[in-house]
Amino acid sequence: MLTTSALSADAATALTGEELHALMARLYPICRSITGDGVRQTLDVVREYLPGLVVHEVPSGTPALDWTVPFEWNIRDAWVKNAAGVRVIDFRAHNLHVLQYSQPKHGWVARQELEEHLFSLPEQPDLIPYRTSYYQPNWGFCLSHHQRAQLQDEYYEVGIDSTLDPAGSLTYGELLLPGSSEEEVLLSCHCCHPSLANDNLSGMVVAVGLARWLAQVPRRYTYRFVFAPGTIGSIVWLSRNPAAVARIRHGLVLSLLGGEGGFTYKKSRRATAEIDRTVALMLRDMAVPHQVVDFIPYGYDERQYCSPGFNLPVGCLSRTPYAQFPEYHTSADNLAFVQPDVLAESLLLTQEVLAALDANCRYQNRHPYGEPELGRRGLYSPVGGASAHPDEQLALLWVLNLSDGQHSLLDIAERARLPFAQVQRAADRLLAHDLLILLPD
Amino acid sequence: MLTTSALSADAATALTGEELHALMARLYPICRSITGDGVRQTLDVVREYLPGLVVHEVPSGTPALDWTVPFEWNIRDAWVKNAAGVRVIDFRAHNLHVLQYSQPKHGWVARQELEEHLFSLPEQPDLIPYRTSYYQPNWGFCLSHHQRAQLQDEYYEVGIDSTLDPAGSLTYGELLLPGSSEEEVLLSCHCCHPSLANDNLSGMVVAVGLARWLAQVPRRYTYRFVFAPGTIGSIVWLSRNPAAVARIRHGLVLSLLGGEGGFTYKKSRRATAEIDRTVALMLRDMAVPHQVVDFIPYGYDERQYCSPGFNLPVGCLSRTPYAQFPEYHTSADNLAFVQPDVLAESLLLTQEVLAALDANCRYQNRHPYGEPELGRRGLYSPVGGASAHPDEQLALLWVLNLSDGQHSLLDIAERARLPFAQVQRAADRLLAHDLLILLPD
Amino acid sequence: MLTTSALSADAATALTGEELHALMARLYPICRSITGDGVRQTLDVVREYLPGLVVHEVPSGTPALDWTVPFEWNIRDAWVKNAAGVRVIDFRAHNLHVLQYSQPKHGWVARQELEEHLFSLPEQPDLIPYRTSYYQPNWGFCLSHHQRAQLQDEYYEVGIDSTLDPAGSLTYGELLLPGSSEEEVLLSCHCCHPSLANDNLSGMVVAVGLARWLAQVPRRYTYRFVFAPGTIGSIVWLSRNPAAVARIRHGLVLSLLGGEGGFTYKKSRRATAEIDRTVALMLRDMAVPHQVVDFIPYGYDERQYCSPGFNLPVGCLSRTPYAQFPEYHTSADNLAFVQPDVLAESLLLTQEVLAALDANCRYQNRHPYGEPELGRRGLYSPVGGASAHPDEQLALLWVLNLSDGQHSLLDIAERARLPFAQVQRAADRLLAHDLLILLPD
Repeated sequence: MLTTSALSADAATALTGEELHALMARLYPICRSITGDGVRQTLDVVREYLPGLVVHEVPSGTPALDWTVPFEWNIRDAWVKNAAGVRVIDFRAHNLHVLQYSQPKHGWVARQELEEHLFSLPEQPDLIPYRTSYYQPNWGFCLSHHQRAQLQDEYYEVGIDSTLDPAGSLTYGELLLPGSSEEEVLLSCHCCHPSLANDNLSGMVVAVGLARWLAQVPRRYTYRFVFAPGTIGSIVWLSRNPAAVARIRHGLVLSLLGGEGGFTYKKSRRATAEIDRTVALMLRDMAVPHQVVDFIPYGYDERQYCSPGFNLPVGCLSRTPYAQFPEYHTSADNLAFVQPDVLAESLLLTQEVLAALDANCRYQNRHPYGEPELGRRGLYSPVGGASAHPDEQLALLWVLNLSDGQHSLLDIAERARLPFAQVQRAADRLLAHDLLILLPD
Repeated sequence: MLTTSALSADAATALTGEELHALMARLYPICRSITGDGVRQTLDVVREYLPGLVVHEVPSGTPALDWTVPFEWNIRDAWVKNAAGVRVIDFRAHNLHVLQYSQPKHGWVARQELEEHLFSLPEQPDLIPYRTSYYQPNWGFCLSHHQRAQLQDEYYEVGIDSTLDPAGSLTYGELLLPGSSEEEVLLSCHCCHPSLANDNLSGMVVAVGLARWLAQVPRRYTYRFVFAPGTIGSIVWLSRNPAAVARIRHGLVLSLLGGEGGFTYKKSRRATAEIDRTVALMLRDMAVPHQVVDFIPYGYDERQYCSPGFNLPVGCLSRTPYAQFPEYHTSADNLAFVQPDVLAESLLLTQEVLAALDANCRYQNRHPYGEPELGRRGLYSPVGGASAHPDEQLALLWVLNLSDGQHSLLDIAERARLPFAQVQRAADRLLAHDLLILLPD
Repeated sequence: MLTTSALSADAATALTGEELHALMARLYPICRSITGDGVRQTLDVVREYLPGLVVHEVPSGTPALDWTVPFEWNIRDAWVKNAAGVRVIDFRAHNLHVLQYSQPKHGWVARQELEEHLFSLPEQPDLIPYRTSYYQPNWGFCLSHHQRAQLQDEYYEVGIDSTLDPAGSLTYGELLLPGSSEEEVLLSCHCCHPSLANDNLSGMVVAVGLARWLAQVPRRYTYRFVFAPGTIGSIVWLSRNPAAVARIRHGLVLSLLGGEGGFTYKKSRRATAEIDRTVALMLRDMAVPHQVVDFIPYGYDERQYCSPGFNLPVGCLSRTPYAQFPEYHTSADNLAFVQPDVLAESLLLTQEVLAALDANCRYQNRHPYGEPELGRRGLYSPVGGASAHPDEQLALLWVLNLSDGQHSLLDIAERARLPFAQVQRAADRLLAHDLLILLPD
């Protein structure tokens, strides 16, 4: 691939934070799970923004690596009524109220039995928790601890109008944006959480923003977006796409990008992959609060992408990580918890990261013996002796000095401690003066 | 060697701190040196605890690497009498009073001449120092500085009833505990110091405790214990055992394990040997005060084991190191200076280290592509969504993620920052579920 | 090269700080530039100290790497006169008053036009700056900001009596001190600045001091001193000496060695070259305030020596670096700014560095299995048991332990954290006792 990047030029075409938030507001009420109509409705909305999105259906029972695609779960209604017939827990009020993958149920249960199927948070008594039981048959309700304390009757009528269909399927969406190169960048987000805004929707809307932007710019890499249910979705995708897996050069799992707090980048299992170094560099260049943390085999779908057989260079970008903010997996992770300007900043950072990956090349200095005479080319200040040396001039010297075939622009920006964009501009100027040769990958 | 470790199971069979201290109390009065009956008597007592101990006698004059086994020294009595015939320095009062390897002597000497043969500590005026002159013919007495100040007579009668026998021998003890593998772990301690408790006896009694325990448990490695005089003893052993040297995979010199202060582990010359990493990890896991220091070519017999020709992976475990506590090499390093609970803790740490070495293997994840489905095997919590992920679960994921053939359990515990024992348990559970294959060494 | 170093023995023969300063005082008034008689006069004085100095003349127009030797510039006089014929700016008062490489000029100019050719420092209004325009035709004057403020006339008469000779040449000096080996150490300093003491003269006089000393001592390496104008001078030298370039094993650019502040060593592009490690070690051993900084492709002639095609192991030794002290490139960088004792310390450090490079060898321990018996060779204290182990004894053990063919004395001094000189002495003693074999490079 022998052209330099134009990718960073068109950042202005990206969706605004408000537009991202508006998309999120449309998706928020839908009751998603790892299978079912919620995912389909969600991907229908996403397709309005990304017409090229392909929706895949994988039948229940299909083997996928060590797993099997589960029965498809759908739910129409769920409630607990007291003796007076009043709904004391009501799925229609909040879709978090039902334990995900609850089996169909109807009948009277003693309070003691009901209690074994209730989930609440004693230390956050106002919030409804999010709980699942995908792979073990169960039924249950999630509710605030205050609400739970009011359940004093001896018997309650329980109704769960759900279906678990062995002839159903698992649904995921995929968008491919071809570039000059067949080498791929993977962007992956999970789409299996019901009404949770930061966890799940923020990653999805940033992915939509990124894809909209990428669709409009020249692309060096081919970009592949995967919107899939957590764990089983990425496992299904990995099991069905060995050829694409082999083409992945860089990847990011996007999650929790709308809440408070600085960025958290969790490195890939490889730890020093180009994506790891690029994200760290752009966080530094953007001068935003952030932390870069080591890979651990827990978290989002990077667990699958970084399993030892695949060991893909895929990191995970979040703001405050899962389980480290009190709203995590509760009804407080709602639309108000996510701010448009936070989404916009998250989108901007990922754009900068992709632009840097796209622009990262190795050059060969055509005059490696001594410095080339920059002055006669108008690249150096004509009057000498002043103390200050502008960073632009220093960037030229760094690119010349390290363009020995061993160093990429990323290497140079790291070693020179200069912004990547400045190093890239210096390379562009030197290239325009025929002082560099772009090397093949 | 293709079984996992059972070695850590039987820690309860170890000697108690009180038993170790009682053994030390029996050995304390014996006047040991680098040769002679003191070493023989000492090894006779050790053999009561370790019936398999073999005592070797190496004739004086035998070449050993660049050295020669010295004449055998024995001493029956030594004294300095004043004109009134009163013993003003008396070997019978403390065996530190004689300069080790003093030649036989009897006669009157002027005080001025006597002074040249006296050793005392002006800054620790109550203590008798320990001094030696193994390789240069000499005679002398060690005494407290207060005692020395009282020597005001013009002439003293000196008597040293010692022998230096060219037909004698050097004595050392060796115990071999065979394991499933011929690969060896070397445990070495010096046994050449007279009445000094921490320096010399503490290492010996911890070695006895270790050997007693190892004798009762299944062993992967073969364990070799060497009780030998410092420097010349290890040199003699190294010179006579080239085949055993070649089988040593890990080793520890044990010394100064009964005094105050946290542990000090001095790394082998290799610095990153498995023994070095294992001791550091177990010190961390046991959460005891400790320091890990770099190798220097001074200290105990690790000097010989880590000489460049051998360069064995042998470190040295102590508590406060030599010369860094005021009682070092003085009469204050006595039985009261060493506490039973300190000995017990030292024994426990070395047990944990050997157990970890024994258990350290590499496994291959049988399902390296994506995570295996732990839930259907009962290894994962059935209800999802809660914030906390128990360390036990995380340990399973780490072992799966890093069991790619490149990482040992030690590597995993280091990278995961989890206790080795937890990582080992996780591996055992995964193995029981047929999710791992144990790899050969 | 199979002899050990005698180089450090004769440090007493070096020039004193006062002698270095006196030489500087002779050179200070000369108006140097990158070409011209100023450089020739300067090298004539240097040759009085270094009779072997060879002065090279390279014709203007000669291609050198990507550059071309410029026209030779000489200047006899330069002035700005007011209407009354009074010189308000006068080259005879200070040779910094003229912009270096000013073209000849004579005539009346309006003040507004004159202002475009004036250079002053508003924030340092008393000082005359140093400015150049080597490669872009121009004329100009440098003056204090106070002096500039007094120029209120409408017209001034400008006279610049300079020549720019296309038939001239560039002048540089070179001194070769052959050693036992053809491998070379390069010492380079720039000689193109007019009356600036720290910047340019301090490096030159330290180089003269070094060369005088080296000329009197046995030398392992061949030493090459280059006194050349900055940038174009080193480029010309590099272009004309490919064979010498190939023989350079170590090198130092000397600059700014007479001003205040601790030492600054800027590492070569290689970062871990022997010169880099040696300078860092000797700074540590001399216990002088210092900093060691990473290479950047800006500064003095290390820019050319460390260009990627050459990538020579050449660092730059200074005290406070360029542009980091207020006197830099101004009339305040005068003879009073440079102190004799500072020059002497700079010379001493460079001597220590060269002595260490010269002495740095690898040895093979002849008794690598166990320690050799040092006691019987008189290298070890005959009485054992004392707490203190003298560093001299420890140095012997370190040299024996690490002389396995892989470690140089530099490696040993670094790892042992002992002074290089002590390690060197230990090696000499061991060699004298036939315990080491000197290995070829």
